[in-house]
This record gives sequence, structure tokens and C-alpha cells, in this order.
Amino acid sequence: MKYLKIKLLDIEVGNTPIVVLHKKDADDLGVHISDRIKIQDGKCTHTAIVDITDTFLIPGDIGLFKTLSKTICAETGTKVKVIPTRKPPSIRFIRKKMDGQILTENEIQRIVQDIVNNDLSQVELSAFITSVYVRGLNTPEIVSLTKNIVTHGQTLDLDVRPIIDKHCIGGIAGNRTTLIVVPIIAAAGLYIPKTSSRAITSPAGTIDSMEVLAPINFNIEEMRDIVMKAHGCIVWGGGVNLASADDKLIKIRYPLKIDPEPLLLASILAKKKAVGANKVLIDIPVGHGSKIKETKYAKELAANFIKIGNKIDIDVECAITPGDRPIGKGIGPQLEARDAIQILHGKGPSDLRMKSLSLAGILLEMGGIAEKGKGFRIAENILNNGKALEAMQYIIELQGGDPRHLDIEPQSLNFSVNSPHKGRIYDIDNNAVIKIARAAGAPVDKYAGLDFHVSRGALVKKGEPLFSINAEKEYKLDAAIEAVKKWKPIIYEKMILDRYSGSEILLE
Amino acid sequence: MKYLKIKLLDIEVGNTPIVVLHKKDADDLGVHISDRIKIQDGKCTHTAIVDITDTFLIPGDIGLFKTLSKTICAETGTKVKVIPTRKPPSIRFIRKKMDGQILTENEIQRIVQDIVNNDLSQVELSAFITSVYVRGLNTPEIVSLTKNIVTHGQTLDLDVRPIIDKHCIGGIAGNRTTLIVVPIIAAAGLYIPKTSSRAITSPAGTIDSMEVLAPINFNIEEMRDIVMKAHGCIVWGGGVNLASADDKLIKIRYPLKIDPEPLLLASILAKKKAVGANKVLIDIPVGHGSKIKETKYAKELAANFIKIGNKIDIDVECAITPGDRPIGKGIGPQLEARDAIQILHGKGPSDLRMKSLSLAGILLEMGGIAEKGKGFRIAENILNNGKALEAMQYIIELQGGDPRHLDIEPQSLNFSVNSPHKGRIYDIDNNAVIKIARAAGAPVDKYAGLDFHVSRGALVKKGEPLFSINAEKEYKLDAAIEAVKKWKPIIYEKMILDRYSGSEILLE
Repeated sequence: MKYLKIKLLDIEVGNTPIVVLHKKDADDLGVHISDRIKIQDGKCTHTAIVDITDTFLIPGDIGLFKTLSKTICAETGTKVKVIPTRKPPSIRFIRKKMDGQILTENEIQRIVQDIVNNDLSQVELSAFITSVYVRGLNTPEIVSLTKNIVTHGQTLDLDVRPIIDKHCIGGIAGNRTTLIVVPIIAAAGLYIPKTSSRAITSPAGTIDSMEVLAPINFNIEEMRDIVMKAHGCIVWGGGVNLASADDKLIKIRYPLKIDPEPLLLASILAKKKAVGANKVLIDIPVGHGSKIKETKYAKELAANFIKIGNKIDIDVECAITPGDRPIGKGIGPQLEARDAIQILHGKGPSDLRMKSLSLAGILLEMGGIAEKGKGFRIAENILNNGKALEAMQYIIELQGGDPRHLDIEPQSLNFSVNSPHKGRIYDIDNNAVIKIARAAGAPVDKYAGLDFHVSRGALVKKGEPLFSINAEKEYKLDAAIEAVKKWKPIIYEKMILDRYSGSEILLE
Repeated sequence: MKYLKIKLLDIEVGNTPIVVLHKKDADDLGVHISDRIKIQDGKCTHTAIVDITDTFLIPGDIGLFKTLSKTICAETGTKVKVIPTRKPPSIRFIRKKMDGQILTENEIQRIVQDIVNNDLSQVELSAFITSVYVRGLNTPEIVSLTKNIVTHGQTLDLDVRPIIDKHCIGGIAGNRTTLIVVPIIAAAGLYIPKTSSRAITSPAGTIDSMEVLAPINFNIEEMRDIVMKAHGCIVWGGGVNLASADDKLIKIRYPLKIDPEPLLLASILAKKKAVGANKVLIDIPVGHGSKIKETKYAKELAANFIKIGNKIDIDVECAITPGDRPIGKGIGPQLEARDAIQILHGKGPSDLRMKSLSLAGILLEMGGIAEKGKGFRIAENILNNGKALEAMQYIIELQGGDPRHLDIEPQSLNFSVNSPHKGRIYDIDNNAVIKIARAAGAPVDKYAGLDFHVSRGALVKKGEPLFSINAEKEYKLDAAIEAVKKWKPIIYEKMILDRYSGSEILLE
């Protein structure tokens, strides 16, 4: 135990509360880097992880990063009592998972609690995610994890039934079905409190596109108000803090580029449970452009969604959809929003329209509005008679947008990519499209992206425009034009795929 | 690409170079937390990991933590070019290990290189260690890892043969054999360039005890000079930077409390290889007080040490030793040094003397000084005729200590713990001893620790002194006295181990 003098450090370092001790004080206390100490500032006690310096502080000082200094409310110079303390118990449970053992409900509860309280360091969280990736979680473990993520986060309490929701296991450029499905469901009189996310690696997430139309950052009370009035909303998940434990896990999954299935299931279903949804449709695109490459695995994943959903009282259905090509014409926040609004106006790209109506149809059937097999037609009616557009306009208005000006025109620099020869378009490479659109500035530059004039199977002449690149900044436009050369998004039909001379064949 | 203005942050945060960007600039660059950027400051390029703020910096500034600002040598206000860049390739290889695949030599080389260059974040290092813990490494992988740790660190080049070394897979209180073995081997005319470490969780490491006798922090040239003159040394491993990749891995293993065998093997053998050792003895204590609890596992570990050693041209032998009780009389840096010096004077505790002579004997046989089976006698001669003491005095002198004043007397507060009743001492609990000695202030307070007056099997009278607690500070002495009550280090012989009444037995 020691008394040390606070020195505030005006820097935020992640979520974990870190304190810096001088080597001498650390030695006196018998603590090492990454050990825990308790800080007592009169009334309350805070736990923090130790970092050690021998240059930056003088002995007797304790450096507090912003994250912690906010909670402690102490000034530079205040004396606090510092006591070494044990590591949180969840480290033992993480170790258990590393060893391939099954975690109890209490152990999982404790891990989630320690995550939410920022009691685990990045090293420890990474070990948890890695061991879940390698060892897996069984059904009761996933159910516990899901329930505890819900319990330890905010929840939306709507006194209505059913509550509808949908989710797409992403990766498909242009796939903006939410902007069409939500207003159809809302217009049908069902409740769909939709939270969505920003793009991480794609040219636009649902929220990036919605943001072109209206503000998206609301707290949970504001979200509730919008949904109770409009029957739906499209708000940013990051604003409502529905599953903070999950948000913290995602931050670690991203640098590791891993997405363990148990965490995927818990993450998605916890967010649905947190808004009170009891009828949920999961859209699972399958194909070389998607996260899920094979139908076999998509079916297993679907079965697991349904099984876990069932254990937490959510009726889940899954739709396996094509994931081998972009959907719609526009790629990028504004261009994708434009496609969606065109569809609500009865126009727009047919593949996105078709997919949205199919998903909406299933949800109408799940929600008891349509008989089995009749959902598509009812969804189509709601779209054709303008009710969906009205519902969307109301949502946009309630979220603070201007529903009278939805015919957004590109305000950007432009470059047309034309066909270098005549031919039939065999495929459009989803991955190349993503690379080019991001080079052009999407999703940060709202107007940046690609606008396709042709689709798969089209016969094009030499010089015919294939797509245009939109950008807000000259140098990004140049970068995107370079990216076209590098990534070759348009694949022409060929009848000879490869050619070998005799000797080459013999060498195999 | 963007030009940003450097703002130096006077804080060190670990080894990984981290920069802080304003959210706006991060968005413009299209980078997220934990992505990498390159910074160009005219001549050279540096890679760093991105952290993001929206309060602490203004847009246009880039915050550099001390670790990075040292290498960049730029001043606050300098404009640098900032370009997003890819993650290092070793992240793919870590992922491969998570998936249970075998890594190639090149892949392991790359991982070690990225670790040494601080190109991997804590999250990524933790994922590597966790996946090695769960998936293991096969022999070629361990060999590659060992070789690459050596290649990417400093090495000691002595033009002599053989070079002797020893290592103990620690955990046993009082086990200071190195302070006796090194001078015996040096006195025999062999070379033993010994690096040792500080205690992490025990009351004293070899270096904590050696530091009572002489300075221990030398660079590799100084170490070479000492060894060439005295045939041996006992210096701090942290000073010579022999295996910096390993040091960085140990920093992550510590908070996770895991010690995967492949990393243990690579860590120890790389450090031996780096000093050029070709004859190495590994001391593996086995028992409930040690890291290795069962003989079966100790044998497997021994076989692996010998196998890996063989592949990197080190002749390894292993000694399985008792690990169920403390060794020597004194526990704590000064008290353990005192025991060792007494032994070099022909006195001191017989168990520590016996163990040291046994280990030294094996090394003399391995080094070609003694025939098989004759090593112990030769070691005993070297000890008895005072040559070992002379060798130790010379080492101490060369390391800057005073060899004329080795009869160090405790300069500390004192408390005698006496037997509360008569009885036979069945056991001394190693774990309790560690807890009490650390409570008394060891290893930071050099004079703190326990000094035993009795040993296992002794018959003691009521009130007879069992051990004394030494401490440098009053409050630590009190804490140690409390710890005695809590941890009960002395276990008396009992003939009835447990007693149940009828109803209690029935309840089971």
C-alpha cells in the first residue's frame, strides 16, 4: 500500500483504465506491468492496469489516462491510496477456454461483466477471442453469452408485439435492402426498430447511406419515440449502446481479422434481443464475393441461428441469397441511397428491388400479416401503392431529414470507364468493385463510388460506358482510375480459359 | 495520403509504436483503430499503429508517443506525410496457427522479425501466444523459432570451446545454485557466461541475490571482457538484450499466466545459443512446489530439451531435482546470497551444497574435465580447496563488487516465529514461504526474507525458534507476520489427517 499523487495525462488510450507508476513505486508495491492496482480516492475504489516508467514520472506520482481520470474526478496533485490487487477472475475462465474446457453460465456472466467494466486488458481480450476461435463455444455457452451481452447493455422497451428485425451477414457491395424493407414493414403496421452499422471494409454500410438522407445518431429514448410514431427507424447501432460488451469484442476481432462463429451468433442475436425483436430474418449471401463462400456452411450457420434464437425466444428464419456479385447500380453511400429511393418510387435496379421484396415478404409472413407464400405480393403492393415511400418519408422526417428532397443528384467529379472492346460481361468482381469505390473515397466521401450502366450478361460494344467513377476529390478520383487498371472489375466471357503448349502440360 | 503536423506526447506506451489521429483525418485516410500507417519524415519511413481521438488532438495534428518520437527525431510542428499501409504479413501466419496449420521457416522468421521491429500490437502478440498455447508447435517450428530469436538478437562471441551453461525451470524458494556452480566451473578452467533474471513471482531471482554482491547490469562487450578474464560471470539477462523477441513474448505471457512449452523451450535454448553455449544442463525441479508437478511431464520436457538442443548443436542434459520444498536456509536476496557464500567457504546448508555440487559435477563431465561419474568428487575438491571461492571473488571484483566483504550480515528488522507446540516437522510449504517472504519485502528490499532454523523431519519443542522474518520496513514486517498466520508455512506430522462424524460421512 502506498499514497501517490495524481498526475492527469490528457490522452485517451482505449477503454481499459491504465495508470502509470514510477518503477520505484511499482517495486515498492511489488507490482509488474499489466498487474492490477486499486486506487482509493476517499469515497470510492477504482481498479486499473499498471504501466511502468522510469523517465516520465517522478517517484510518488501516479499518471492517470483520460478514461480513468473521468471516473475518478480527481485533480492533479490529489493524494490517493494505491493497493496491489488480484487479476479479475475471468482471466481464469479465459484460461479454461484455452484449455478446451466448457464454461459455466456464471463464468460467462463474469467475463461479460469484466468486459463491460473495462476490467480486461487488450492482451486478455485477445486471448479470449483467440481461444473461442480455436476451441469454439457449445450451444449453452453461446446462449449464456448472448443473454449476458443483453443483460449488461441497454435495451429498448417497446410494449408491442411482434417486433420485427433483419440482419445481413454482409460483404456484398450495393446491398442496401434495409432502406426498402424497413419502410415496407412499417407501412404494413408492424414494428421494426432497426439499428445498423457503418462500413468497416466495404464502400458503404446501411448507416453510411441512411446518413445521406437523415441524421442517424440517437439515444435509446429518441429511438423509442421514432419507432412508436413511425413503426420503424434506421439508426446507428453505435449511438444506442445496445451491446457494449459486443462492441468491445468487435474492436479486437477487427485487427485479428477473425470472426469466430460463436461470437458472430451472439453478437447479432444479442442486438436483436436488445431491441425486443421476436421475429428475425437473417440474410446470408453465399458466393465468392461474400463472407460465406459455400452453401453447405451457410446452411449450418442458418441452423445455428435458428437454434440459438429459439433458446432466447426469438423466432428466426434465414434466407440464403446470391453473394457472388454486387447488387444494385450504385456503389457508395449516396449512390446506394439513390438506388433505394428510386425503388421506393417504383423505379430503380431490379435485382435490389427483387431481393428487398423477397426479404420483406418473408418478414410479413413471419409477422402474421401475410399467409405463407403470399408475403412477396403484399410487399409488392405496399411498394407499388406508394405506402412504403410514405413510411420512409415519415421515418426520414422524424430522424430530422428533409423528406421532400430525396432525389439526390451526384455532386461530384466524374470519370466514365468504357469498354475497351466488344464482348459479353461474364461477371463483375465484387472485391474489385469494393477496392475501386474505396479508392474513390467511399464511405467517408458520401458522393464517392461507382455507378454501373451495365450488368452481368450484357453484350457491350467497344467504347460503350461500363460504369462511372464519382469522387469528391481530384486525387481520389485519380487513385480510383489507377485501381481500375489494377483490379479489373469487369470480367468478359471467354471460351478458352487457359492455353498450354505440349511441354507445359507434360510438366504437370 | 495526407500531410499532418507532429505533436509529441511525452508518454511511453509499451514497445509498439502508436500514433494518435483525429477522427476526421482517420476518416479521410480511410483507417480505423489498430490499422497501420506509414509516416515519412523526409528521408525515412516508419510504420505505426493507429489510435483515434476526437477530443485530444485537432484535425491536422498527429500525436506521437515517446517510443516512436525517439526514432523519428522530429519536433512538434514538423509536417510529415502519412499513408495508410497494410498490416504486416505475420498476421496471416498467426491466423494460420490459430487454424492449426504448421508454419514454415520463412513464416516464423517473419513473425520474429515483426516482433523485434515492434510491428505487432499487443492484441496480435496475445493471439500468437494463445494460438501457440492451444495448437502447439512441432519440432521444426520450435527449432525455427529458436534460431530466429537468436538471429534477431545480440550474440556473445567467445572464441573458446566448450562453453558451458545451466538453467533452472524455476519456482523453488532459496534455490541459488548458480552462485555456487558458476565459480566451480570457472575454477575448473571452463567458460560459463551466465545470464540470469530477476524474480517475477518468487522472493529472489539469481540476479536479485547476485546484486547484493556486485553490480549485474552490463552490455555484451563488458560481459565478454569479464568472461574472458574470469571464465565466468553472473550478469542480468535484461542488460545484454540476447533475445529481444523472447523478452517481448514473456511480457505477454505474464499477464495471461501461460507458459506454453514450445515457447519455454525456444526461450531458454535461444538464450543459451546466443551466448554460444554448446554444453547445457537444464535443472527441472519436480513436485508440488514447482512449476512441473509430475515426473512423467518432467521426463517429456527433458526429452524435448535434448531433441531441440540437438538440432541447434547444443549438447543438452537434464537433471530432475526435488521440487517439493525450499532449498537452503535463507529466503530472500541477501539471505540466499549469504547461504551461497557460506557454501563457498565450506559451510552453509547441506541441501543447497549437495545440489550445487551435483549440478556442477554433471557440467564438469559434459565439459570433458571429469570422467562420467567422477564429476561430483572433482566439484567437491574445487569447493573444498577454496578455488571456487577465489573464482567467485574474481568474478565479483570484475563485476565491480568488493570481494573482501562477502560475510554480509542482515541489516534489518527481525521477528522470530517459534513453534506453538512440540512436534515433528512434516513439511515446509514452498508456496507459503514465497507469500511470506514477499510480504516481508523480498525481492525489492534486499535484506527482507525468511531465515530457517529448522528443516524437514526435525523434532521441535514448544517455543523453539522455527524461522525468523527479516524486513527493512516496519509495516512490511507486520504484513509478513500476518501472512504467517494466514499461510501456515510449517506443516507438522499428524497421524489422523481428517475426522468425520457418522452423519457427515452419510451426507457424501
